[in-house]
Amino acid sequence: MTSEGASRDTTGDGEPRDVIPTNRLESFSDGVMAVIITIMAFNLRPPAHNQWSAVAQRLPTLLIYVLSFTFIGIYWNNHHHLLRLTTTISAGVMWANLAQLFSLSLVPVVTQWVGQGADALFPASAYGVVGLFSAVMYFILVRAILRANHHDANLTRALGHDLKGVISPIIYAAGIGLAFVSPYLAYACYVLVSLMWIVPDQRLVRPQPRR
Amino acid sequence: MTSEGASRDTTGDGEPRDVIPTNRLESFSDGVMAVIITIMAFNLRPPAHNQWSAVAQRLPTLLIYVLSFTFIGIYWNNHHHLLRLTTTISAGVMWANLAQLFSLSLVPVVTQWVGQGADALFPASAYGVVGLFSAVMYFILVRAILRANHHDANLTRALGHDLKGVISPIIYAAGIGLAFVSPYLAYACYVLVSLMWIVPDQRLVRPQPRR
Amino acid sequence: MTSEGASRDTTGDGEPRDVIPTNRLESFSDGVMAVIITIMAFNLRPPAHNQWSAVAQRLPTLLIYVLSFTFIGIYWNNHHHLLRLTTTISAGVMWANLAQLFSLSLVPVVTQWVGQGADALFPASAYGVVGLFSAVMYFILVRAILRANHHDANLTRALGHDLKGVISPIIYAAGIGLAFVSPYLAYACYVLVSLMWIVPDQRLVRPQPRR
Amino acid sequence: MTSEGASRDTTGDGEPRDVIPTNRLESFSDGVMAVIITIMAFNLRPPAHNQWSAVAQRLPTLLIYVLSFTFIGIYWNNHHHLLRLTTTISAGVMWANLAQLFSLSLVPVVTQWVGQGADALFPASAYGVVGLFSAVMYFILVRAILRANHHDANLTRALGHDLKGVISPIIYAAGIGLAFVSPYLAYACYVLVSLMWIVPDQRLVRPQPRR
Repeated sequence: MTSEGASRDTTGDGEPRDVIPTNRLESFSDGVMAVIITIMAFNLRPPAHNQWSAVAQRLPTLLIYVLSFTFIGIYWNNHHHLLRLTTTISAGVMWANLAQLFSLSLVPVVTQWVGQGADALFPASAYGVVGLFSAVMYFILVRAILRANHHDANLTRALGHDLKGVISPIIYAAGIGLAFVSPYLAYACYVLVSLMWIVPDQRLVRPQPRR
Repeated sequence: MTSEGASRDTTGDGEPRDVIPTNRLESFSDGVMAVIITIMAFNLRPPAHNQWSAVAQRLPTLLIYVLSFTFIGIYWNNHHHLLRLTTTISAGVMWANLAQLFSLSLVPVVTQWVGQGADALFPASAYGVVGLFSAVMYFILVRAILRANHHDANLTRALGHDLKGVISPIIYAAGIGLAFVSPYLAYACYVLVSLMWIVPDQRLVRPQPRR
Repeated sequence: MTSEGASRDTTGDGEPRDVIPTNRLESFSDGVMAVIITIMAFNLRPPAHNQWSAVAQRLPTLLIYVLSFTFIGIYWNNHHHLLRLTTTISAGVMWANLAQLFSLSLVPVVTQWVGQGADALFPASAYGVVGLFSAVMYFILVRAILRANHHDANLTRALGHDLKGVISPIIYAAGIGLAFVSPYLAYACYVLVSLMWIVPDQRLVRPQPRR
Repeated sequence: MTSEGASRDTTGDGEPRDVIPTNRLESFSDGVMAVIITIMAFNLRPPAHNQWSAVAQRLPTLLIYVLSFTFIGIYWNNHHHLLRLTTTISAGVMWANLAQLFSLSLVPVVTQWVGQGADALFPASAYGVVGLFSAVMYFILVRAILRANHHDANLTRALGHDLKGVISPIIYAAGIGLAFVSPYLAYACYVLVSLMWIVPDQRLVRPQPRR
């Protein structure tokens, strides 16, 4: 409300008059990602009986949950940093963002699939397909934001050399292929991508000052 | 808080003194829609066994999920644009908004029903009934907002010729009827409505400047 | 952040220096209530087979869902109006609010219980127990807010003659008792309370101006 | 948006130029904690049949739900107070916060485990392990926030003698050990920690004025 009113009053110097603020897009995305993360926790089941063997049987489920939690956490982190630099959004950004959320919403089901049998080809490669899909959607979201902000020089510079953004889908694609050799090679790829992203993206954390 | 305080201080020129800000209505609606979207993702189940046939068996469930995700996404988009133009809400708007959310909360159950058997008459027409119901509730919400804002000329103009809002329920009604001929004709109708709305509503994206 | 910073800077004229803003309490409560409402929708199951008899079998579940959705909607509405008048909160308010949310979090399970067999004594009276419990918790929340705001005269006046707040628990208690005569008399009581509240609370919608 | 814009304009006197506001971290955490709390409510099941014995059978499940609800409520309370004192966050804080949320996301599954059989060793000690893990993650989060705020003297003083923060993990560890003697001794420990925290942390509720 406040920020909107403020942005509409802006007569602007080259700025578009009708700046759509990012706050509600952020809060909706936060909501969706928060639910995705906790729905996966909901899929965790207590061991069937009270013996070490039953507990050990749940270990792969827990490990893949850790990976998926980290996966969503990374996207939330990047989304946060990205939107923080964004001044305005467009209808295109809203749809690109929904597409991004759609791709992330498939994470719980592949997580559950892997939890049912981590040593099988299908779930191991399906997990990579969702990872690849999400990475591509993020790429599109970044492009949509740049376009909506008229390729704002600072934003472009801040998002400039997106090395990790280019490498990630390649490693996911490699993981999908390697799943045919061994599912565990595929998981190694997915863990690698996560480790790569946990180190925060320097471009965004220390953005160039606006002026 | 801030915005509220601000709006209460407004002595107003014809404006009602006690403007109820929209922010909490928005955040609650965001929360409900975020959960609806991810509850549907939760209803997706991994294939029962690891063969192409089992994967293929899940395909209709995935397709109807895409349609329902788009459906909720469209309502979120429209709701976002609509509330962005709204200055104040009333008790009537709050109830109309709850009725809108109620109608949307029925989407997951009909989605699941269709997922159980897309070629049957009942789920195909039930999906249309929920679509029609949601469209009518949106219509009522728009009217309630116009009334609460004393038919603000700018808002009225922005919401003026709501062609899509009038056509949508008609196509949904047609879909319900066509389900008796073939469920797939019904789905074609529902997809048509979605495609129609993905193109953003020009009335709202580029609103008339307030002054 | 903004509002907090603002409230801390306030040197205040009689106002306590460390005003705890209400925004995060509101957003957390919104989140919990949004999830409660949609979890109930998740408990709706599509008919077991595609015949009118199977659809009709789901009707009581749908009706009780409508009642519970309205129930949570009423609490959200009242919570919204109440917090809008609140300037500051205390630790006591935070715990009273959590107790309120706890009571509401029991609504889905009694709703499901009623859905399993609406004509039985136990679920019919359990539903009333949760309604009574929630009403008492709301009463406590209102008292905690009044105390935290040092019985602010305007707030006290606005919350003054809380007739509905006194009558509601009485009707719920009557419903619990009447369930022993007939479960349907109990449901009639619960519907009556909801109808009574759907009419917005005039005390809060048109608050006295602050100064 | 507003607060961000504001914080970026701040030329600062010793303040870092790029202050990352806390609001979105708070709203995401609120979302996750709200869903965790209500997912546990979703795990409550109505009694299998309508007799006192069936109702009584659900009592342990309800009691452990009350404990877990209180547990998450305490963390939300502390998180709220902690972030309210925080001016800026860093990438480290964002990851520490995600780790905190991860630890809390394990509460529903151990709650469910205890609900399946409260008198067994495994669930009783697993509950303590999650409690201990969460306490350690909170400790790390506090440290990360202090570091991100350059050990702001006021914040350090406010968080200074964190007696309860030190005692809690010790009692949890004791509970894990005592579970081998009797599960009920373990639960007594967990209840003790909760009671200790329900009394609000005086350090945070009445913070030192900033200047």
